[in-house]
Amino acid sequence: MQPKKEFAPACPVPIGRYPAILLAHGGGGRLMQQLLEQVIVPAFGNPALDARHDSAVIELHGQRLALTTDSYVVRPLFFPGGDIGTLAVNGTVNDLAMSGARPLCLSAGFIIEEGLPMETLQRLVASMRAAADAAGVQIVTGDTKVVDRGKGDGIFINTAGLGVLEHELDISPRAVRSGDTIVVSGDLGRHGMAIMAVREGLEFDSAIESDCAPLAEPALALIADGIDVHCLRDLTRGGLASALNEIAGVAGLGMRIEEPAIAVREDVRGACEILGFDPLYVANEGRFVAFVAARDAERAVEVLRQYETTAGAAVIGTVTGERPPMVTLTSVLGSSRIVDMLSGEQLPRIC
Amino acid sequence: MQPKKEFAPACPVPIGRYPAILLAHGGGGRLMQQLLEQVIVPAFGNPALDARHDSAVIELHGQRLALTTDSYVVRPLFFPGGDIGTLAVNGTVNDLAMSGARPLCLSAGFIIEEGLPMETLQRLVASMRAAADAAGVQIVTGDTKVVDRGKGDGIFINTAGLGVLEHELDISPRAVRSGDTIVVSGDLGRHGMAIMAVREGLEFDSAIESDCAPLAEPALALIADGIDVHCLRDLTRGGLASALNEIAGVAGLGMRIEEPAIAVREDVRGACEILGFDPLYVANEGRFVAFVAARDAERAVEVLRQYETTAGAAVIGTVTGERPPMVTLTSVLGSSRIVDMLSGEQLPRIC
Repeated sequence: MQPKKEFAPACPVPIGRYPAILLAHGGGGRLMQQLLEQVIVPAFGNPALDARHDSAVIELHGQRLALTTDSYVVRPLFFPGGDIGTLAVNGTVNDLAMSGARPLCLSAGFIIEEGLPMETLQRLVASMRAAADAAGVQIVTGDTKVVDRGKGDGIFINTAGLGVLEHELDISPRAVRSGDTIVVSGDLGRHGMAIMAVREGLEFDSAIESDCAPLAEPALALIADGIDVHCLRDLTRGGLASALNEIAGVAGLGMRIEEPAIAVREDVRGACEILGFDPLYVANEGRFVAFVAARDAERAVEVLRQYETTAGAAVIGTVTGERPPMVTLTSVLGSSRIVDMLSGEQLPRIC
Repeated sequence: MQPKKEFAPACPVPIGRYPAILLAHGGGGRLMQQLLEQVIVPAFGNPALDARHDSAVIELHGQRLALTTDSYVVRPLFFPGGDIGTLAVNGTVNDLAMSGARPLCLSAGFIIEEGLPMETLQRLVASMRAAADAAGVQIVTGDTKVVDRGKGDGIFINTAGLGVLEHELDISPRAVRSGDTIVVSGDLGRHGMAIMAVREGLEFDSAIESDCAPLAEPALALIADGIDVHCLRDLTRGGLASALNEIAGVAGLGMRIEEPAIAVREDVRGACEILGFDPLYVANEGRFVAFVAARDAERAVEVLRQYETTAGAAVIGTVTGERPPMVTLTSVLGSSRIVDMLSGEQLPRIC
């Protein structure tokens, strides 16, 4: 199967219409998808990349290894609930976990703008160490580059992660089946709104804290428990809506989700309303969606609820298998609407 | 053994004297070494990182894997002999090769400045693909971030690489022994001078081309031939002088090199003279130094000379074991001088 072919949006915009990169090409929505589909994936094309999952899975002498990478360009560098350092560790740990891999170790690449206070760097590497310890991984190799003042923005951090798959499951978008149950690991929108509240100077009774957290332990617990896990995806750029659309596209299967089942904290909902965001599209850094066989759904929720970071796990919908493969939401009032892919840039530099 | 302790420069400057990051903290010289020693390595400290080699080597179920990363911030993006894309692939392939690993696959992380021409990105990913094909690796996973105009510089590319060690040797600075022969794989200084000639608008009869090339094949051929290889190191930021000083420091052993044995092309030497650079400190992207048991030195040179990229291999010196562990050069005229670590920034953003 060539998932790429089914993955094309209904009405693709030729990338040639954009003579230059826009901020939205990094936003996690349709423009980013088109950039990947039309420029990057065709250039590098190989089976691991075509699988379009959070990590590539490579076979080596009978073992399955996972490799993933993310660069972090969030601003501000420090925000309630975390900083670019915690994000850089947890984000990559989570990408490994989403392919069902046990995270082994990380690399760290720093691109520092001349003039960054030394103390800022010291705080960030300390955060990274603390986050790595909490996630049970080591940062084993790294690189430091410095760019001239005005050619960067404080610091950008890339991490790559290596993990090992210790099971036989194929956990990927193409493994999703009609009838699967969709489980989300907790309330949505906290990371994006934590960042935006700081940027916009919103004041609440207490700050909205990012949900940034390592997810490997609860994700691997699902597998260890024998649950028939088909796909896992963390809900970062583009939020739940973009993740579901991307998976629906690769699997070629429609989905239905129930709005009343999707938890959004009151303060997060308030911030979304003030700023004009839909929480379904807002980035999270400690939430994931799991596609599991329907018979295992209840057990999956039970397993996740044993962990603090996934204590709010709930069933939110099912894979209907309808075509074209759209995501449909049943609202609180019982009406239906299509939840489309994020089309431009919603929250620039959220991670 | 704790190589870190022997690695401290004779007169360490407390990092606290620098309240902010300078360009020189990324230059591959003493300031960068201090930043790593005093800020980054202590924060992340673990045996793999302490080994201070180009790649970390991790044991997994009886296999030795290598993980490495580098970010590339070179400007201009395109230069004679290559571009940031070829550099990003070859640099990381070479870091794997320098730990004696066979490169398996790469990740690619793009940090793109808003406004980068789409055609530039297309050319760069095509270069990366061509370089990956030439080096026999696949780019299996990636990430794209876009930063606002004026917060980046066109494009920065991070690659991480995964490799596998298929031999029993310990190839690392701490494996260097007194009496080892020092072999360099070819003429020095071309990459750095190719970049500087473009930046400074120097005109020669023909452009100096970067030596940028994948080195895994000749490096692994040394091992396959049964040569007792103790350490390999590619001669990037800081050039031959910095690489030798770093290895001398970790091994705790002095070295002597012979100036007449070190090849520098006439045009490169001319450019160095005009711009005031010492070719021993200029970055290369397709050259490495090998420390081999003296009895295998001649054979090592023979093996390397079979490959186009290492056809200029030659013995350039020996590990004398003198302490303190300094690098001494015997000049063309027979006099001796100490070749110190590069102390500040020589060539900013050379890779």
